[in-house]
Amino acid sequence: MEHLTRRHVLLGVATTVAALAAARPLSGQAPPTSAGPADPGLIEDLVAANRILVDQGVLDGYGHVSVRHDRAADRYLMARSVAPELVTTADIMEYDLDSAPVDARGRATYLERFIHGEIYRARPDVRAVVHSHSPSVIPFGVTGVSLRPLYHMSAFLAGGVPVYDIRQASGGMTDMLVRNAMLGQSLARVLGSAPVALMRGHGAVVVGSSLPAVVFRSVYTEVNARLQMQAMALGGPVVYLDPEEARRAEASIAGTIPRPWELWKKKALGR
Amino acid sequence: MEHLTRRHVLLGVATTVAALAAARPLSGQAPPTSAGPADPGLIEDLVAANRILVDQGVLDGYGHVSVRHDRAADRYLMARSVAPELVTTADIMEYDLDSAPVDARGRATYLERFIHGEIYRARPDVRAVVHSHSPSVIPFGVTGVSLRPLYHMSAFLAGGVPVYDIRQASGGMTDMLVRNAMLGQSLARVLGSAPVALMRGHGAVVVGSSLPAVVFRSVYTEVNARLQMQAMALGGPVVYLDPEEARRAEASIAGTIPRPWELWKKKALGR
Amino acid sequence: MEHLTRRHVLLGVATTVAALAAARPLSGQAPPTSAGPADPGLIEDLVAANRILVDQGVLDGYGHVSVRHDRAADRYLMARSVAPELVTTADIMEYDLDSAPVDARGRATYLERFIHGEIYRARPDVRAVVHSHSPSVIPFGVTGVSLRPLYHMSAFLAGGVPVYDIRQASGGMTDMLVRNAMLGQSLARVLGSAPVALMRGHGAVVVGSSLPAVVFRSVYTEVNARLQMQAMALGGPVVYLDPEEARRAEASIAGTIPRPWELWKKKALGR
Amino acid sequence: MEHLTRRHVLLGVATTVAALAAARPLSGQAPPTSAGPADPGLIEDLVAANRILVDQGVLDGYGHVSVRHDRAADRYLMARSVAPELVTTADIMEYDLDSAPVDARGRATYLERFIHGEIYRARPDVRAVVHSHSPSVIPFGVTGVSLRPLYHMSAFLAGGVPVYDIRQASGGMTDMLVRNAMLGQSLARVLGSAPVALMRGHGAVVVGSSLPAVVFRSVYTEVNARLQMQAMALGGPVVYLDPEEARRAEASIAGTIPRPWELWKKKALGR
Repeated sequence: MEHLTRRHVLLGVATTVAALAAARPLSGQAPPTSAGPADPGLIEDLVAANRILVDQGVLDGYGHVSVRHDRAADRYLMARSVAPELVTTADIMEYDLDSAPVDARGRATYLERFIHGEIYRARPDVRAVVHSHSPSVIPFGVTGVSLRPLYHMSAFLAGGVPVYDIRQASGGMTDMLVRNAMLGQSLARVLGSAPVALMRGHGAVVVGSSLPAVVFRSVYTEVNARLQMQAMALGGPVVYLDPEEARRAEASIAGTIPRPWELWKKKALGR
Repeated sequence: MEHLTRRHVLLGVATTVAALAAARPLSGQAPPTSAGPADPGLIEDLVAANRILVDQGVLDGYGHVSVRHDRAADRYLMARSVAPELVTTADIMEYDLDSAPVDARGRATYLERFIHGEIYRARPDVRAVVHSHSPSVIPFGVTGVSLRPLYHMSAFLAGGVPVYDIRQASGGMTDMLVRNAMLGQSLARVLGSAPVALMRGHGAVVVGSSLPAVVFRSVYTEVNARLQMQAMALGGPVVYLDPEEARRAEASIAGTIPRPWELWKKKALGR
Repeated sequence: MEHLTRRHVLLGVATTVAALAAARPLSGQAPPTSAGPADPGLIEDLVAANRILVDQGVLDGYGHVSVRHDRAADRYLMARSVAPELVTTADIMEYDLDSAPVDARGRATYLERFIHGEIYRARPDVRAVVHSHSPSVIPFGVTGVSLRPLYHMSAFLAGGVPVYDIRQASGGMTDMLVRNAMLGQSLARVLGSAPVALMRGHGAVVVGSSLPAVVFRSVYTEVNARLQMQAMALGGPVVYLDPEEARRAEASIAGTIPRPWELWKKKALGR
Repeated sequence: MEHLTRRHVLLGVATTVAALAAARPLSGQAPPTSAGPADPGLIEDLVAANRILVDQGVLDGYGHVSVRHDRAADRYLMARSVAPELVTTADIMEYDLDSAPVDARGRATYLERFIHGEIYRARPDVRAVVHSHSPSVIPFGVTGVSLRPLYHMSAFLAGGVPVYDIRQASGGMTDMLVRNAMLGQSLARVLGSAPVALMRGHGAVVVGSSLPAVVFRSVYTEVNARLQMQAMALGGPVVYLDPEEARRAEASIAGTIPRPWELWKKKALGR
C-alpha cells in the first residue's frame, strides 16, 4: 500500500506530465494476492454484459465493463485487453484497486483500467463500471449542451451529467487516455456521486450498483442522448423531467431492470 | 363492481397523491372470474404482435400490447411482466377491466396494465392497445411540436394527436407510470376518440379495432415521427395531408393492412 | 381497345371525382390474352428485385416493382398483391397496359397497378418500374426542397425530379392512391422523361431500362435523399453535380450496375 | 518504365480532356511481370478488409481496398472488379504502379484502380489504400465544412482533411471517376501527406501503413463524420481535439488497432 500513499499525495491539483509519469506503478512489483474465485454467476453476467453493450450499440471494438469482486471490496473483475464482443469466461481477470492484475499470465490489460480501480476506490456504492465511446453522447461531451433526461427511462440522469476534461484535470496535454491512477482519480472526482460522466473528446463512464444496473444505465444514456438531439432539433423549449418526477421514476424503473436484462442476457449468451 | 363506482367518484378533477393511493385495488380481494378460453388464433396473433413491435423498432425490452377477449367485452388478454420479444403463448394472461388478473398463478403483471383496462372500458370500439416508448415519438411528447401525418400511411393521425401530461392529470408529482386505475382513466380521457396519444416524457399509447390495426398504427406512427423530424429540418413549410385526403386515405389503407401483417407475422413466428 | 380510347378523351386537364369513377374498367369484361410465357430469367430477376428493394430499405411491407414482358411491349409482369419480401415466382402475374390481369385466378392485384401500366404506355424506353414509400424521399415530396444529386452515384437525378401532387392532378380530393388509369396517366405526365418522380404525401416512382437499372436508381435515390438532408443541415451552400458532370457520370456508372446487382441478387435469392 | 516517364511529363498543371485520353495505357502493351506470390496471410487480410468495410458501413456494392505487395514496393494487390462483400482469395490480382494487371486472365479491373497505383507511387509510407463512398463523409465533401476530429478515435484527422475536386484537378468536366493515371496523380497530390482526402461529389480515399490501419481509419472517419454532423446540429462551438492531444492520441490508439481488427476479421471470415 506504500505506492498508494505516494499517489494520494499527487491528488487535488493539476499536475504536470512529468508527475503523471511518476505515478505509474513500478515494474517488477509483486502482483497482488487473489481474493479467491468469484461467483461463477457473476462472471457469466460480466461476459453477458460485454456482449449486451455491443448488441445495444454502446460499445464497438473498444470499451470495457467491470464488476466488483463479490468476495472482496478491494478487487474487481474485468476482461483482458480484447474486444468486448469476443469476451469469454476465460478472459476475465482479477485486479486490485491499483488496477494491477492478480494473475496476468501474459495477458494484456486495458490501458485505461485505472478508470475502474479508482472509481471502485472512491465510490463504495458502486459495484459495476462501464467505459464506452457510446456514440450519441460524444456530441454532448464536446459542446456546451448538457445531457438531460427527457423521459422516465433515463431519469437517473436528473442530478446532472458532469463532463470530464482530461486536459484541465491533468494540467497539460495528454493522449486522451486515462492511463494511470492519477488520471483515474481525477475522473472519479469529476464523476463525484453521479451515475454518469461524459469524457470530452472521448466517451463516457457509467456506474451502478450491479451489472444489470450499469448496463441499463449505459443503454438508456445512449438512447436519451439520441432523443435529446432530435428534440432540440425540433426547436422550441424541451420539457425535461422534473427533479422530483425523476427521483420517483428512477426508483420505480430500477425495480423493472430484470425485465430487459433477462432478454438481453438470453440473446447475448445464446449465440 | 363496488370499487369501480368508488373510483369513478375520483374522476374529472386533479386529485392528490394520497387519493391515488386510495384508488389502488385492495389486496385479498377475490380474483375475477374467467370469460373462458380465448380463440387460439387470437392468442397467436397477440404473441406475434409482441414480437412484430420489437422487429419494427416500436418496443424494446419494455412496453406491452393487449387484445380484448373475443368472448367477453369486459376482459382482455396480455402477457405477464416479461420483455415483449420473449412472450410466448404460455405468458398470456386474462384481466378484467380493473386490470386484475383472472389467474395470476404467481406471475408478475405489468405495473402499467391500467392503461389497457381503462381504455377498453372507455372505448367500446377499441379491441387492441399498445403502450410503447416508440423512440421517434418521444421528442414530440416533450416539445410543443404536434405530430401530424405527412403521408398516406399515417393518415389515421389526421384528427390530432393529444399529449398526455401525467403531472397535470394527477395534479402532482408521480413516478411517470400509469400505475393505477385513476391514472389510466385520465389517460383514456386525454386519448378521447383518437387512435394515438403521446405521453409526455414517457412514450405513447395506440389503439385499434384489431391487433393488425394497432400494430400497423404503431409502426407508422413511429415512421411518421421520424419523417416529420426530417421534413421540418429541411426548412420551409411542410405540407401535411388535407383532412379530407386523410379521411379517405385512412379508409383505403385500412383495407390493405393484411398485406404487411402477413409478412410481419410470418417473420415474427418463424424464428 | 374501345375503353382505352374513351379513357384517352379524359386526358389533359383536371377532371372531377365523378369522372375518375367513370374511368374504371367495367367488371365482366373479358381478360386480356397472354403474350405467352416470359423468360424465366426475367421472372427470377423480378423476384430478386422485390427482395433487394426490401433489403436496401426502399420498400417495406408495401410498394411494388414490375418489368415489361420480354415478348410483348404491351404486357408487363408484377406480383399479385403481397408484401414484396414474400414474392416468389408463383406470385408473378401478367398484365396488359390497362393493368388488367391476364389470368388472375382469384389472386388480388395491387390497387395502384395503374402506375405501372400507364408509364409503360407513355414511355416506350422504360422496361421496369418501382413504386415505393422510400422513406428518405418523403420529406422532399412535402417541402419545397428539390431533390438533387450530390454525388456521382445519383447522377441520374440531374435532369430534375418532378413532384406529383395527386390533388392538382385529379382536380379534387382523393385517397392519395393512384387507383385508376386516369390517375396513372396524370402521374406519367408529371414524370415526363425523367427517371424519378416524387409523389407528394406518398412516395416515389422510379423507372429504368431494366430491372437492375431501376433497382440501382431506387437505391441511390434513397441514399442521395438521406445525404442531401445531412448536407443541408451542415449549413452553407451545397455543391451539386454540374449537369455535364452528371451526364457523363450517369453514362459511366450505368456500365457498372452489374457489380452491385450480382451482390444484391445473390443475397436476395440466397435466403 | 518508359511510359511512366511520359506520364510524369503531364503532371503539375491542369490539362485538357484530350490530354487525359492520351495518358491512357496503350492496348497491346505486354503485361507487367509478377513480383511472385504474395504472403497468403496478407491476401487473407485483404479479403477480410473488403468484407469488414462492408460490415462497418464504409463500403456498399462499390469501393475497393488494396495492399502493397509484400515482396515488391512497385506492385499492389486488389480484387478484380467485383462487389467487396463477394471478394474471395481467387479474386485478388496483382497490379504494377501504372495499375496494369499482371495476369488479368480476362478478369475485369476497377475503373478507378489508378487511385491505388498513383498513391503507392507518391507515398512510399503507404502500404494500404481504401477508396469508398463512405456515406457520412459525402456531405463534408460538398459543403465548405471541414471534417475535424472530435474524439480520440479519429485523432489521425487532426492534420486536416483535404478535399479533392476532380473538376479543378482535370481543368474540365469529367465523369467524376479517377479513371486514368493523370487523375490518380492529381488525387495523390491533393492527398499530400494526409491519411484521408475527401473527393467532392464522390467519396473518400484513406491510406495507412497496413490493412488493419487503413480499415481502422476508414471506419473512424465515417464515425467521426456522423458525430460531427450531430455535434454541429446541437449548436454552439464544437471543441475539437487540440493538435498536440491529437498527435499523442493517434500514437497511442495506433497501438490498440489489433484489438478491433481481431474482432472484425473473425466476423468477416466466419461467415
